[in-house]
Amino acid sequence: MDIEALRNAHPEHWMKAAAIRTLTLDAVQAANSGHSGAPMGMADIATVLFEKHLKFDAANPDWPDRDRFILSNGHGSMLLYSLLHLTGYEDMTLDEVKNFRQWGAKTAGHPEYGHAKGIETTTGPLGQGLANSVGFALAEEILRARFGRKLVDHYTYVFAGDGCLMEGVSHEAISLAGHQQLGKLIVFFDDNAITIDGKVELSDRTNQVARFKAAGWHVQEIDGHDPVAIDEAIVKAKASRRPSMIACKTHIALGSSAQDTSKGHGALTDATLIADTKAAYGWTTGPFEIPADIKSQWEEIGRRGRAERTAWEERLADSGASKQAEFARTLAREPSKRLSATIKALKKQVSEGQPKVATRKSSEMVLEVVNPIMKETVGGSADLTGSNNTLTADLGVHDASNRKGRYIHYGIREHGMAAAMNGLALHGQIRPYGGTFMAFTDYARPAMRLAALMGIPTVFVMTHDSIGLGEDGPTHQPVEHLAISRATPNTHVFRPADTVETAEAWELALTATATPSVLSLTRQGLPTVRMEHKTSNLTARGAYVLAEADGKRQAILMATGSEVAIALEAREILQKEGIGTRVVSMPCWELFAEQDDTYRRRVLPGGPVRVAIEAGVRMGWDRWLLGERGKEAKADFVGMTGFGASAPAPTLYEKFGITAENTADKVRKLLAGS
Amino acid sequence: MDIEALRNAHPEHWMKAAAIRTLTLDAVQAANSGHSGAPMGMADIATVLFEKHLKFDAANPDWPDRDRFILSNGHGSMLLYSLLHLTGYEDMTLDEVKNFRQWGAKTAGHPEYGHAKGIETTTGPLGQGLANSVGFALAEEILRARFGRKLVDHYTYVFAGDGCLMEGVSHEAISLAGHQQLGKLIVFFDDNAITIDGKVELSDRTNQVARFKAAGWHVQEIDGHDPVAIDEAIVKAKASRRPSMIACKTHIALGSSAQDTSKGHGALTDATLIADTKAAYGWTTGPFEIPADIKSQWEEIGRRGRAERTAWEERLADSGASKQAEFARTLAREPSKRLSATIKALKKQVSEGQPKVATRKSSEMVLEVVNPIMKETVGGSADLTGSNNTLTADLGVHDASNRKGRYIHYGIREHGMAAAMNGLALHGQIRPYGGTFMAFTDYARPAMRLAALMGIPTVFVMTHDSIGLGEDGPTHQPVEHLAISRATPNTHVFRPADTVETAEAWELALTATATPSVLSLTRQGLPTVRMEHKTSNLTARGAYVLAEADGKRQAILMATGSEVAIALEAREILQKEGIGTRVVSMPCWELFAEQDDTYRRRVLPGGPVRVAIEAGVRMGWDRWLLGERGKEAKADFVGMTGFGASAPAPTLYEKFGITAENTADKVRKLLAGS
Repeated sequence: MDIEALRNAHPEHWMKAAAIRTLTLDAVQAANSGHSGAPMGMADIATVLFEKHLKFDAANPDWPDRDRFILSNGHGSMLLYSLLHLTGYEDMTLDEVKNFRQWGAKTAGHPEYGHAKGIETTTGPLGQGLANSVGFALAEEILRARFGRKLVDHYTYVFAGDGCLMEGVSHEAISLAGHQQLGKLIVFFDDNAITIDGKVELSDRTNQVARFKAAGWHVQEIDGHDPVAIDEAIVKAKASRRPSMIACKTHIALGSSAQDTSKGHGALTDATLIADTKAAYGWTTGPFEIPADIKSQWEEIGRRGRAERTAWEERLADSGASKQAEFARTLAREPSKRLSATIKALKKQVSEGQPKVATRKSSEMVLEVVNPIMKETVGGSADLTGSNNTLTADLGVHDASNRKGRYIHYGIREHGMAAAMNGLALHGQIRPYGGTFMAFTDYARPAMRLAALMGIPTVFVMTHDSIGLGEDGPTHQPVEHLAISRATPNTHVFRPADTVETAEAWELALTATATPSVLSLTRQGLPTVRMEHKTSNLTARGAYVLAEADGKRQAILMATGSEVAIALEAREILQKEGIGTRVVSMPCWELFAEQDDTYRRRVLPGGPVRVAIEAGVRMGWDRWLLGERGKEAKADFVGMTGFGASAPAPTLYEKFGITAENTADKVRKLLAGS
Repeated sequence: MDIEALRNAHPEHWMKAAAIRTLTLDAVQAANSGHSGAPMGMADIATVLFEKHLKFDAANPDWPDRDRFILSNGHGSMLLYSLLHLTGYEDMTLDEVKNFRQWGAKTAGHPEYGHAKGIETTTGPLGQGLANSVGFALAEEILRARFGRKLVDHYTYVFAGDGCLMEGVSHEAISLAGHQQLGKLIVFFDDNAITIDGKVELSDRTNQVARFKAAGWHVQEIDGHDPVAIDEAIVKAKASRRPSMIACKTHIALGSSAQDTSKGHGALTDATLIADTKAAYGWTTGPFEIPADIKSQWEEIGRRGRAERTAWEERLADSGASKQAEFARTLAREPSKRLSATIKALKKQVSEGQPKVATRKSSEMVLEVVNPIMKETVGGSADLTGSNNTLTADLGVHDASNRKGRYIHYGIREHGMAAAMNGLALHGQIRPYGGTFMAFTDYARPAMRLAALMGIPTVFVMTHDSIGLGEDGPTHQPVEHLAISRATPNTHVFRPADTVETAEAWELALTATATPSVLSLTRQGLPTVRMEHKTSNLTARGAYVLAEADGKRQAILMATGSEVAIALEAREILQKEGIGTRVVSMPCWELFAEQDDTYRRRVLPGGPVRVAIEAGVRMGWDRWLLGERGKEAKADFVGMTGFGASAPAPTLYEKFGITAENTADKVRKLLAGS
């Protein structure tokens, strides 16, 4: 690569881009780890994007109508940190850059949402940022249709590398974006032909340009180091009504002796290499020293959006009061003021009518009353709409011909759906929920974990949550998936027992601000177990006494979801034998664990024998069976010990022994033995 | 659709295909659930494939050189069951077909590997069969290079629907297959334009033909109901040196009133609809009645491969003795006779030399001595070769120019890798292992679960297994992933503490026949903790006493992997204070749980306080802390309560309190309190 020629062709541009490159070199050297190559390779693209196109105001990083910039190849985090520091984001100080990858720094190894302004999403697990971006761009379309172009009119820009494009989720993302004709989504492919193992051709020869075309994208191919070509390509991409992919031929670790090698992908820390590279760049200042004129040019870029931002603020102020209020409410993730009363009314109606319905149907009943009053909800399903019961009458299907639609047919793309939902949530002013079968938690896992890590309130509607789904068999029957979601930090796993608990769970999911929710819902019909109306949300306590022991309390049955009715049935059997039996419904372990010791002790006192019933594996239950004043000799579990089978649901419950009689039997044996 | 015209054009073909269609209608009606549409739509393709191309012998379904047939759109299971029954597979009786989706039947809702011969893999979770097929085709290439074309020379045929092609894993699979130029892989795309939610165009407008071309495939488009076109397309596909995709325009639920609708995708059970459809087909016999002449034509098809099979057997018998022996050994999944001695020798050397290495490096040390004696191993990594330490000197990189190579650069495709490995294992005569970072278990989950469900010994090499990976931060640091794998039935999760345990774990993984293994390996260096050589495999017991208490046994420390050294350090501290402390290493919970009560009691006696140490979440540990004679008041845990952070590993261990001092402190407090 003729660095000299690049420098001379566009000297001002060159030095601005060099600032990114040298900050990267210095930070990676100081940390003695990280990835130098991608920031060095993509610095020109980033410089042109920020200088000429990206709508942002560094002094007001939360401006809702800013363009979004997503670094999907998150290992190149120093690119983002450099840009934020250079353009003058207040919280991205030089000290933060110097503390790259150190304890407590905002400059984590990969960009972490919430650490600093300007980090729109957490990236690192490849493909996620790209898949999030579909949600960001969808959010923009939906909000533009809702609040009008004067308030919502921005682009979503994505940087993505070979890794992002090899990951399967990229296929789901780009085909969904192509289908939805998300014209304001613009992806820059860092086509550097290098991965960690070596040349891309070691493992891939995909024609990415042809592939994006096949998905309905507008595609261009440019030299990723030519600022004029970059600018022109962005202009064209912005004009296209289709999502745009700009394949940028770049050189990883540009200008260093590791250029165009997999070594250049990683941490360049050798002092000589760094010195030589800086010399080639024409960079003469010391580590972390940005010449004042260059810093000032970058800060000017950081201020470029100020006028546009203030004009936007005036437009918002000129909007009608109710629009302003709704804009502000959704931005603050505040639920509708009517939500609480709406939920209470439904609960009352259900406790009185006592319908026997599947909780997936209960969920639909909730959504039917909630969606009309919370216009920020955006529903969807991965091609199981009729099974997940996620579509309500008022939503309307979202596509290019109906941008007001609030229901997304995500297609058979559980992973892409989950990641797009995260993007919808991250964009702001949207509360996304989406459904699939619970067994396919497996497909959505990478994005579900990131929702938890980022602390965003995405709602995963997981129906057909046990062997209760019946004939489809073990591939479709979750047994370990409750444990999987419960093992994940910062995740609320709700497994409601009936429509009342489902309504309570939804209320909690829709008021959450920093925690994703997993709703575990049945295929099969369940009786109403909450037959006495209570205005307070009992699910918010995580677990509660549903039925008290009659007479001396000898046994406590704990259950969730579809097994609560079995516990009640077992209680009937035991009470008839004079065995006082309490039933505890535990719709959300995580919330119960957060209750104070007094409450937990009241629900789960020491003394009685305990049997837990859940049509899943035991993992995790020992906390409640043996812990919390429990004892090994006085506890047992009714559930699954392996995978399910294909047969009608009642047969499966019988064959796997998840029955009231078996539960009662375990209680009798424990009482006899203790 | 003009059914009359189809019938008249090819009457013999038509009736054979109608047998599939009517068996499907009858079975789904009897089960009152299932999927009628796909078998009805793909019956013509299946008939031509089985009649004219598929190399198989129904009387010898395990013939190793048979062509493989994979129904990736597994919900169309009645297509496969019909074919197996019609062609005369002994175990696929008419009674089995009649018992479709009932308890104990071989005819599960989705095809389950192991239920009946001819089911080459479990499908249902969409995209998996297609992704498995890449492994099947790779296995054929590898084995052909190894044993010669006379013994190995067959095709892999796949049926896949829109769902399979929308799933992200399909992208990973087809780009990997395209890159590897798997010319003997032939995929039929059931292009019926319908999904569960409605028309495909509700969620997707991908040009699948262009997409496969972009991935380097040979592509054709045909009428999927024209037997001549189908035959010609297969001839051309077989001749291509590239993998082939045949896009077949079909009509879902062909000939019924539900044709070309999403209703037709599901269970057609209406008696009138079924009667009308059969009438249109010209089918006059009763439910489950196949006219003798048609059954006999199908059985003839089932015998078509007999001569080829016997000729193959002769060629095998004519092979050299050592080739025959190796062929038989690998087919039987028997380990090399030298494996045990090789592992013992390495263990001895390590116990003497006591190297301090990361267990990912230990794993490489094992593979360096094992790969040369077990030629059935096929290694790989999802673009983290140097980090996973999965490549050994003798393997050679597998690609189109080196079919003898036993190392696959899977690319940044964790899911595709895991599914391809399952295919390699299912094909037979191959023991696949492949690496990625443990946090990316999330990406590979759907295939890891299927390995467990199918009972195949795929080996997942998961390195960087905790916050010990350091600066890359929480996106790359597993905390819940040990729990996730442990929650999955039929999965051995090995977390070895040093090179000796790593060698033992590998020995168990490489001798397993019906259980996948997850190897949880560190990035960071660990001291050798097994300093006294023992010939027996202690890891096979799951847990064992690594260091006995000196004096009265007051505490038991349990730990796995990198935390075993911390437990030993804590023991030192406690012993100095006169607190007799035992250290139990628990490299594999599942194997420990299988030990008899006497052994478990010996390792974990009641009485002493217990502290478990693991750099992951607590979920699951209560079984060993509170169960197995443990008590809540006498047990505690040192580990993670949330996600990790970006910082050097030693800092993270310190900040998250996973230290010997903190462990010792918990013991002191428990002893003071009890």
